[in-house]
Amino acid sequence: MPVELMAQNAKKAAIELGGMDTDRKNKALALIAQKLNQKREDIFSANKQDIERSKNENLPDPLIKRLKFDEKKLADLLDGIKSLIKMEDPVGKTLLSTELDTGLELYRVSCPIGIIGIIFESRPDALVQISALCLKSGNAVLLKGGKEAALTNRILYETILSATREAGVPDAWINLLESRDEVSELLKLDSYVDLIIPRGSNEFVRYIMENSRIPVMGHADGICHCYIDKDADVEKAVSIVVDSKTQYVSVCNALETLLVHESIAGTILPLLKKELEERNVEIRGCEKTRAIIPCSIATEEDWRTEYLDYILSVRVVESIDKAIEHINTYGSGHTDAIVSENRANIEKFMNYVDSGNVFANCSTRFADGFRYGLGAEVGISTNKLHARGPVGLEGLVTYKYKLVGNGHIVADYAEKRRRFTHRPLNKEFKV
Amino acid sequence: MPVELMAQNAKKAAIELGGMDTDRKNKALALIAQKLNQKREDIFSANKQDIERSKNENLPDPLIKRLKFDEKKLADLLDGIKSLIKMEDPVGKTLLSTELDTGLELYRVSCPIGIIGIIFESRPDALVQISALCLKSGNAVLLKGGKEAALTNRILYETILSATREAGVPDAWINLLESRDEVSELLKLDSYVDLIIPRGSNEFVRYIMENSRIPVMGHADGICHCYIDKDADVEKAVSIVVDSKTQYVSVCNALETLLVHESIAGTILPLLKKELEERNVEIRGCEKTRAIIPCSIATEEDWRTEYLDYILSVRVVESIDKAIEHINTYGSGHTDAIVSENRANIEKFMNYVDSGNVFANCSTRFADGFRYGLGAEVGISTNKLHARGPVGLEGLVTYKYKLVGNGHIVADYAEKRRRFTHRPLNKEFKV
Repeated sequence: MPVELMAQNAKKAAIELGGMDTDRKNKALALIAQKLNQKREDIFSANKQDIERSKNENLPDPLIKRLKFDEKKLADLLDGIKSLIKMEDPVGKTLLSTELDTGLELYRVSCPIGIIGIIFESRPDALVQISALCLKSGNAVLLKGGKEAALTNRILYETILSATREAGVPDAWINLLESRDEVSELLKLDSYVDLIIPRGSNEFVRYIMENSRIPVMGHADGICHCYIDKDADVEKAVSIVVDSKTQYVSVCNALETLLVHESIAGTILPLLKKELEERNVEIRGCEKTRAIIPCSIATEEDWRTEYLDYILSVRVVESIDKAIEHINTYGSGHTDAIVSENRANIEKFMNYVDSGNVFANCSTRFADGFRYGLGAEVGISTNKLHARGPVGLEGLVTYKYKLVGNGHIVADYAEKRRRFTHRPLNKEFKV
Repeated sequence: MPVELMAQNAKKAAIELGGMDTDRKNKALALIAQKLNQKREDIFSANKQDIERSKNENLPDPLIKRLKFDEKKLADLLDGIKSLIKMEDPVGKTLLSTELDTGLELYRVSCPIGIIGIIFESRPDALVQISALCLKSGNAVLLKGGKEAALTNRILYETILSATREAGVPDAWINLLESRDEVSELLKLDSYVDLIIPRGSNEFVRYIMENSRIPVMGHADGICHCYIDKDADVEKAVSIVVDSKTQYVSVCNALETLLVHESIAGTILPLLKKELEERNVEIRGCEKTRAIIPCSIATEEDWRTEYLDYILSVRVVESIDKAIEHINTYGSGHTDAIVSENRANIEKFMNYVDSGNVFANCSTRFADGFRYGLGAEVGISTNKLHARGPVGLEGLVTYKYKLVGNGHIVADYAEKRRRFTHRPLNKEFKV
């Protein structure tokens, strides 16, 4: 089926799904969990074939690792779906209610966005996770996974489809794209697809962002900074830097560049060097850093690099202002932290660093939807519009204004026969 | 100055403005009002020159009409600025607060978006109005007006700049682009400019939307519908259609297509024809319409056309579902209304019509920020993301997450030495 036709059908399904009650959506989610569990052996077997074929094709190891869909991945997904069922429906919430005049009531009510394109590399569990989030929030999906996971993706898609069909959700709510050409087609469908969520490497995400007019929710880079202020507690600073850099190096909220105030650099850098080298972290420093600890030299390129590896660039700065300027110049607006006992400096840092997550005296690794208590996580967005930082289910909805009158016309107000009351109603929408 | 350098300076100014307290921003607004008033004769004289030149260049009448900046426009602007000063600062509001663990507190706090590009045709009052909104919400602006209003724009820009300078706002917060080439440059600056707000004709807005990767907030078309249900009150229906179509024909929330249920068409169409013809509205109908009332024929093209004129296309439909399908196919997601006394049908229409504003038993002309009681209006958005429908000051802000700890690291949670509490705090952010 051509992708455009798929999108047309998805649009109809999206409108039906948008008005669907919570019980039916939860029933569909419960059936997805049940059928994934029943089909487990078939899914694992399809996944083994994908892995075999990818190994034969000499695909890189990290990719093959991400491709794996095993008992652990399945158990995590089933847990995720169960907690998603318990979550409040993000659709149909009254966000604002105002009486414009007697009998003329305005409501701002949350509703699904519409059609969401999900493009992901390797990890077939992403297909299930994001589809489930979209179903709960009433959105139709066009899915495109990597060809290395083709068999796994297909059986996961078919399992989800059979579950939602049984629950009475129209088939066209979920669509699987299987060829590479279809991605370019999808990226052009800005008249149908309302949002794209990409999941994969930063090159992959950047490619999607640069090749579509459809809004993209996500992040390409996570160049996260930690700034150690002159008034930092040294012990906290060392512990926070070690955690931010090494707790899990290959993730977007890991630390990439350390900025240290010059008056504390002499104390802190030797301590940090010891701790980091014990954990095999290579330090690349500016000239001032190298005057304090021996290390390789950091170039301009380092300030712009997301290593996702055991490497840390270090720059000594003469003031908090220089630190903020560095972050706003080289950062990616993801997550940046200050370590300081000085409240005025903390406040300054948090106000002036232009990032989705600004932290004081804690690890950058906390930037995460689950840790934030948002429940299910759609991803982390470095966009400034719509949703920023870790995005929960509410990032998958928009709102519409519903105005209910009783024959009200504007001429009466324009000609001063009537006046607006603009009185807050504080009540739920009901016709 | 090259536009890119302007944007770089604006970014620095935006960061300073983002942390500026409400009093200073309000003082700047008060000074803008004061200086505009002082400079009134110079502004009117500059405007007269713009109008003279445009007349000599034979520019179209409606454009010259919009170009006019007179006592009335100035008075409206001054009133607008006064009410803007009284409005709550949209920046620095705590939108969510959660204790993640003892001493580790998360806050979602509203903040400015950053740099906003404002591109407008003719109307120089738009320069003042949107700049004032951006100032209150802490955003820097790059302004580009039409060359027909060049002298008016320049004096308005200089007056605003001198006022904000006196209040201590950095000069680079406001920037005037004066050549056409600079617009194409501006549209390319997606690494600096966070949002574009275009004000002008639909061709103009569509051009901007199609020629930039920067998010655009606004609407190109306003193809608004009214559906008269089989269970409509005839008197209300006639009054609502007349108001929606004729109260002000050249605006985006005016009615363009009427859909009538076939079982009520025989009663309502002759009544409507009489009322509309008295107001010089041309009716273009489908075959079924023409079987009831004489009128010219509506083509497929009519369903896609925003007339902004005394023309109404009319289609008789066999069901509410067909009406909803028509709207979701040909509409622009702006404003659509149902006239019906049937609650189930009203609910269906409001759920399934995929538009920013869905109305029952009232005129489409109510879709407007002032009428909605939002205070200052940025514009009406047909986007689904970020802000939809009439957009108030809150559409000019985003948020960031602020997390304040006391040496907290993720390893403690990953290795189960500590557990998240995720307890709602319900308090304002404070370091």
